[in-house]
Amino acid sequence: MNPILAVGSVAFDSIKTPFGEASRVVGGAATYFAIAASFFTEVRIVAVVGEDFGANIDKVFGGRTIDITGLETVPGETFRWKGEYGFDLNSRETIYTHLNVFEQFKPKIPESHRSSPFVFLGNIHPTLQLDVIEQVEKPRLVGADTMNYWIEGTPDELKKVLKRVDVLLINDSEARQLAGEANLVKAARTVQAMGPKTLVIKRGEHGVLMTRNGGGFFAAPAMPLEEVFDPTGAGDTFAGGFLGYLASCDTVDDAALARAIIYGSTLASFAVEDFSVDRLLCLTKDEISVRFNEFKTLTHFDVT
Amino acid sequence: MNPILAVGSVAFDSIKTPFGEASRVVGGAATYFAIAASFFTEVRIVAVVGEDFGANIDKVFGGRTIDITGLETVPGETFRWKGEYGFDLNSRETIYTHLNVFEQFKPKIPESHRSSPFVFLGNIHPTLQLDVIEQVEKPRLVGADTMNYWIEGTPDELKKVLKRVDVLLINDSEARQLAGEANLVKAARTVQAMGPKTLVIKRGEHGVLMTRNGGGFFAAPAMPLEEVFDPTGAGDTFAGGFLGYLASCDTVDDAALARAIIYGSTLASFAVEDFSVDRLLCLTKDEISVRFNEFKTLTHFDVT
Repeated sequence: MNPILAVGSVAFDSIKTPFGEASRVVGGAATYFAIAASFFTEVRIVAVVGEDFGANIDKVFGGRTIDITGLETVPGETFRWKGEYGFDLNSRETIYTHLNVFEQFKPKIPESHRSSPFVFLGNIHPTLQLDVIEQVEKPRLVGADTMNYWIEGTPDELKKVLKRVDVLLINDSEARQLAGEANLVKAARTVQAMGPKTLVIKRGEHGVLMTRNGGGFFAAPAMPLEEVFDPTGAGDTFAGGFLGYLASCDTVDDAALARAIIYGSTLASFAVEDFSVDRLLCLTKDEISVRFNEFKTLTHFDVT
Repeated sequence: MNPILAVGSVAFDSIKTPFGEASRVVGGAATYFAIAASFFTEVRIVAVVGEDFGANIDKVFGGRTIDITGLETVPGETFRWKGEYGFDLNSRETIYTHLNVFEQFKPKIPESHRSSPFVFLGNIHPTLQLDVIEQVEKPRLVGADTMNYWIEGTPDELKKVLKRVDVLLINDSEARQLAGEANLVKAARTVQAMGPKTLVIKRGEHGVLMTRNGGGFFAAPAMPLEEVFDPTGAGDTFAGGFLGYLASCDTVDDAALARAIIYGSTLASFAVEDFSVDRLLCLTKDEISVRFNEFKTLTHFDVT
């Protein structure tokens, strides 16, 4: 089992969906990632919160294989984000983003974490992502997320990061934008040529598409769910389940990558069942195992 | 092997995509359906063309297990449609629809076809679909397509049809509209309660979702393709591959339904590789078999 170093945001979210509202609940990419990955391996979180985060640290990260040595608490307020979802949950409007203490965030990797074999770079400024890579010693696998904001605004910095990344996890519009190519197969090859041999394209309710080293793709649908309550954090939870499972494997081969996609999809399918990280906090390993097998029933067919 | 009676349109299409243009090429739902299904079983086509269709009848349907006894040629022009696709092929604008001889189409099922064990009702007026059902003798399986135009305009007639349909093949927005429900899982259950125990929801580049009698779903991604040339007829080709394969099976159980989804997806993935039915006309059974197996590589994972 390989520990994962995870760098990213820990936040307070306010969310409105067609099914309800939640105000100032725990969110942030690193939060979702760490909880999801902690079902499979040890997670070393590097992030910053304000003094207002208080007892949430223990509530969210306590009692799990999550090392919070790298989680700084500094004077000021925690990163806050407010978003509102449309009728079918596919459209989302950001009402506000207050960076607060996150504005000055400079990831400092604790000495004891520098030899982490797995690293996940959450969606932060590419220069900070590069800074993290410089601080760690030859990790076995580096995963990363990014977004349209960095693809447009800091393409040169991003390209330097991509050269050091093994697995890039982005959505389909980001893949198309990064490659400057509408066809997703061609876009995937272009992105692979930039560095990450494994590209995981997240498509929300339409599932996931992954390139593999051999050139072939692996695809998985999302689990059809009767109640999707709040999609916030689904992609970060996916990344946590995906990399968490990979880190628990002896070797990262095509078969392990395929199972990792299903574990990521499994964790994400739970995350959306309730606001914030509420569903993940009460999730059990048995439930994960049952839903993983439901994915097999959902997708498998016999050749004859 | 069970013959399939297929009722629907045979047309001339004019198509513009970002990759080129084709003018007055063979199209029509029944055309795509029949060619695709003929790789698996005998197809009995019931449709109408104008005298201008001429030698296309032999070019398209000849040399295949397609019975054209029910294909009428009448004075006048063949159904014509012109459409233009947007940059990413996901949006389509209809430039014109000239029903021509199709306007007076009243399907007359030849005596020899009335005992067909499989029936496919293409996307035509629900009253005509019902008329076809009345003319056939206890088919083992009735499949049908419909569209938003009939869901909105003739809901009562459509509901009478649905009571007689075993497999309904529609896209996701049609499923949501028919059920009056945004959540696709709930929408599927509502549609099942209207009659069709098997609902096949076509999602274009995002694949297919199918309900099964036991209540569980089966889902398949679309094959990631480097060249998608013309998406016209992909859904009809899918339906032909799906029902054609089912008709070739001894029993229609969950395993056969899952394989049918993959055969439908396989045929559809070829249809989009060229304009009109061009790719389907030169397709071989070996190519189908190879791509079917590529779907296994694309989607399968081991539990441990």
